[in-house]
Amino acid sequence: MAPVALPISTQTSLPLGEYLFKRIESLGIQSIFGVPGDFNLNLLEHLYSTGLNWFGSCNELNASYSADGYSRMVCSQNKFGVVVTTFGVGELSAINGISGSFAEYVPVLHIVGTTSTEVKQTNANIHHLIPNKLGNKSNHYVYEEMATSVSCKVESLTDLDHAAIKIDNLIKEILITKRPGYLYIPCNLADQMINFNNDSFKTTSSFKLSNLIPSVNEELAIVTDSILQKIYNCKNPCILGDILTDRFCQVENLHKLVNITKFPNFSTFMGKSILNETNKTYSGEYNGLESSPETYEFVKSCDLIIHVGDYYTETNSGHDTIYKGIDTNKLILMNQNRVQIDSISYDVNFIHLLPNLLDKLNTLRIPKPTQTPSSFKINPVPSNANISQTDLLEKLQSFIEPNDTIVVETCSLMFGLPDLRLPKGTKVIGQHFYMSIGMGLPCSFGVGVALAEQKKRGRGRGTQAEKEGRLILIEGDGSAQMTIQELSNFNRSNEHVIKPIVLLLNNSGYTVERLIKGPERSYNDIRPSWNWSGSLLDTFGFQNHKSMKCQTIDDLNTFFENENDGFGNEISLCEVILDRLDVPWRFKYMCGTPQK
Amino acid sequence: MAPVALPISTQTSLPLGEYLFKRIESLGIQSIFGVPGDFNLNLLEHLYSTGLNWFGSCNELNASYSADGYSRMVCSQNKFGVVVTTFGVGELSAINGISGSFAEYVPVLHIVGTTSTEVKQTNANIHHLIPNKLGNKSNHYVYEEMATSVSCKVESLTDLDHAAIKIDNLIKEILITKRPGYLYIPCNLADQMINFNNDSFKTTSSFKLSNLIPSVNEELAIVTDSILQKIYNCKNPCILGDILTDRFCQVENLHKLVNITKFPNFSTFMGKSILNETNKTYSGEYNGLESSPETYEFVKSCDLIIHVGDYYTETNSGHDTIYKGIDTNKLILMNQNRVQIDSISYDVNFIHLLPNLLDKLNTLRIPKPTQTPSSFKINPVPSNANISQTDLLEKLQSFIEPNDTIVVETCSLMFGLPDLRLPKGTKVIGQHFYMSIGMGLPCSFGVGVALAEQKKRGRGRGTQAEKEGRLILIEGDGSAQMTIQELSNFNRSNEHVIKPIVLLLNNSGYTVERLIKGPERSYNDIRPSWNWSGSLLDTFGFQNHKSMKCQTIDDLNTFFENENDGFGNEISLCEVILDRLDVPWRFKYMCGTPQK
Repeated sequence: MAPVALPISTQTSLPLGEYLFKRIESLGIQSIFGVPGDFNLNLLEHLYSTGLNWFGSCNELNASYSADGYSRMVCSQNKFGVVVTTFGVGELSAINGISGSFAEYVPVLHIVGTTSTEVKQTNANIHHLIPNKLGNKSNHYVYEEMATSVSCKVESLTDLDHAAIKIDNLIKEILITKRPGYLYIPCNLADQMINFNNDSFKTTSSFKLSNLIPSVNEELAIVTDSILQKIYNCKNPCILGDILTDRFCQVENLHKLVNITKFPNFSTFMGKSILNETNKTYSGEYNGLESSPETYEFVKSCDLIIHVGDYYTETNSGHDTIYKGIDTNKLILMNQNRVQIDSISYDVNFIHLLPNLLDKLNTLRIPKPTQTPSSFKINPVPSNANISQTDLLEKLQSFIEPNDTIVVETCSLMFGLPDLRLPKGTKVIGQHFYMSIGMGLPCSFGVGVALAEQKKRGRGRGTQAEKEGRLILIEGDGSAQMTIQELSNFNRSNEHVIKPIVLLLNNSGYTVERLIKGPERSYNDIRPSWNWSGSLLDTFGFQNHKSMKCQTIDDLNTFFENENDGFGNEISLCEVILDRLDVPWRFKYMCGTPQK
Repeated sequence: MAPVALPISTQTSLPLGEYLFKRIESLGIQSIFGVPGDFNLNLLEHLYSTGLNWFGSCNELNASYSADGYSRMVCSQNKFGVVVTTFGVGELSAINGISGSFAEYVPVLHIVGTTSTEVKQTNANIHHLIPNKLGNKSNHYVYEEMATSVSCKVESLTDLDHAAIKIDNLIKEILITKRPGYLYIPCNLADQMINFNNDSFKTTSSFKLSNLIPSVNEELAIVTDSILQKIYNCKNPCILGDILTDRFCQVENLHKLVNITKFPNFSTFMGKSILNETNKTYSGEYNGLESSPETYEFVKSCDLIIHVGDYYTETNSGHDTIYKGIDTNKLILMNQNRVQIDSISYDVNFIHLLPNLLDKLNTLRIPKPTQTPSSFKINPVPSNANISQTDLLEKLQSFIEPNDTIVVETCSLMFGLPDLRLPKGTKVIGQHFYMSIGMGLPCSFGVGVALAEQKKRGRGRGTQAEKEGRLILIEGDGSAQMTIQELSNFNRSNEHVIKPIVLLLNNSGYTVERLIKGPERSYNDIRPSWNWSGSLLDTFGFQNHKSMKCQTIDDLNTFFENENDGFGNEISLCEVILDRLDVPWRFKYMCGTPQK
């Protein structure tokens, strides 16, 4: 996709900033996140020529987490999150959030306003810039070099030549790879006029995933046929639903595959909520030896395992046990990079394979599995606390309703959620691999913004509209302290953001770390005595809220009974007092405690 | 300083982690900051074999700011700040803080716990690690590569060979350059025994700055003599005191130079509080055209300008006007990189030059300046607000007492502080160049920890001990929202941290940005309705505190009158309501408003 000069006749022009924001808007993205700084103010001015909503964040790390959360909600519609920061101080504050998006295939456009093209040439020591190690000449591209590691592409505009095409190509790269891309805009360029093809806004079909990743691969037919034969000839198959299915917009196709084949299906650790868990064939989580023993034995005994959207990471492979004891000739893996059959990789993308497979599948030849997995359940863990993690999971199981969105921070309870069977339309969002604590709260803000957009779009669907889901944020006290200020961003009208039900797990510090080492060490303590359920929400300016401290099961019942009245009208916070060493069985097992 | 094998006879051994922390302790550093993570827990265990205080921060960016603040307090004693984070998620969250330390010559040791040496070799997708762009093999050194840009040196331990010497050499590099250095420790190495020279803890003289930077330069005598001749022959000299004087431990020598010569002396923007401002010869701030017109004319008319510890940056050069209209043959510049006379640079370090100059200076030959600068004052700016920035500066002028430490966030009032004449022993700390907003609050925590150490050391100095100073934090509401949780870290005993008087300037958003662009734009708004002076400190668990909202001068008087009772016994917070567009004259001028 090298820049190509356009015929003059089709060209028109806009200020660069306006073009950028109109392009973003044209793709169906309605909201962007960020923090102003003197190098991006010129750019931000152009927001007001569009219908985009600006959500100022309390800081840039939070902004990147919010853009990530927004993206996790919309990327299945081939959209992405957008975050705007300023040179150096802003972009570096955000870089860990971007790195997390990179690690978990979350498409984000990170726009950075920089020093002017003129100043860059002087190598001057401008504020926000780190000077060179020796002497006074400084490299104005130093941060851009750092960004290459955490992005699919860095587009650094140095002039106006082909700026529109460069912007479009960057966006396409983000959509193709589902990873963050950086756009650096010198502050003096944002207002300048750029030329672009007038037709490019009339249709955005060139940004559709199927057009971005054209299928020119002759292996597709071979691979499809090979898989069909495996399906027709198996006796005890199963399907694993994994995270990249969501990222590459294949959830619907996965659901069709499950519904047509009726094969037993499992979600992976990262793939929680990818599958329809109300399906009778849904059989819980499979994560190698970190599954329940029954599940592990069942999957190991299958003669065909179709792993859709597979992503091999430490946490998502049960610490390298996900294929343990499984012959590779029983395994089919498929994601955006390759399809693997009999341990042979084919250069086929699952976004082409799945529709083709569904198209070609002869339903009459699909075998009925001869064995079915045992039903899964919440695996209880003994506890001396008033409220155990098991209690909390059981309450959650009955509390969660169709279409709820659950943002789960990296915390002890994250390792219990796979035991739940989720109602239809429920979505679980968490950073199950990168695991940067503090991410959950600002992420949930981005999710709340996307939910509000969704709710507005849903209007007029008629009186039969499905029950609208709620936003539930689950996080530990240590994580909450990291990014707590972002809670104040929910103090907006319901039109702009759906307000969360916050389950604040107060277990007096870093419980996950205490299990790993130093259960009583001071390094695992956090700041004590925060008044979570007392004055926190008042402090952040909420006029209406419900806050409650739950020390007993009765308290929990009271809170949950009062929380069934709808969809984000006011924020509520439930501080749940847990034992500082209680964790679900799965995490105990990961730390070396054998399963019964 | 290549690693050298030690004679066996002098060697002894300790676990690597214990060696590291004992080395830090041996240099007089008493406190370290950070956040635990599963890759640094093994390391942190070794804290308990030392007397080091661990200060867990709410998040890693805050931790890096706190280590920076601590360092700014102790670096003049040739010490540094220390921050410990974990692989990826932790270190990247901290990187903007480290970048700020790098930009402003603040020595910090950043210790990162990483994946084990064994796992690194597998290139596995371990949690916290970003996977490679294509395929599954991942580079476990990806973050280390990013860190090179913001550090003097990255020491990545891959085995135990010469580990002690490598650690020592990294620390020496930090002390020599006064810039951050990174130490990467794989989690499996922290507990392993390493050999080191038994004598190395008996004396730490090899870490003294004068031993680290030996003077072997024959130009020293020539340069000294040349400067002496300039001094003896000038008629209207002045001295500019700049920031690197502090960083390279030369404040005492600068004071001697000022006291002996009695030359009029000015601080630069970054150099505020470097000079003794109670001195009759102290004449305010000089920052090129961003000085008062009288000061600018005075300095321009001098026939000798000795700029000590000069650091040429945008903000510290009055936007490139600091030497405007000044003949280079009237200028002497000196810092750690070179001494410049008549625009010729000499390879002489000012840490050697200053003592030599003082030693050789013939006091009888020092001329008495024929002209003296006019006295400086707070330059009033008209305002319609109940409390103007001028009012606030005047209150501060009478409120600040000897030995107070003032941490000033990047905010409108930062540009008013140069107009104050500070009492003796007062120190101003701020990020006058890198200007990462949000830095001030966590920085002040590190400062408070250093002050508590200083107070403990000062005990027993006798009944004549000087009045102990207070810690004053000045910051705007937008900056405060960025890092507010760190305020809760002050909720500790006075033995561990001196509590601040917080002046929270509530001007409803990013005032500095509003002056630059978009005074009424939504992007310059922050989260509204925070209850700063109501419940904030209660929320963070403080049992005792004073909080007050000041809307009038009378309110301000009431607050300040009650704040004269000592040294950090309890925290106090003064929310000052300011107009959203009020700024001191200096900032107005920077934005294009001419001076009268």
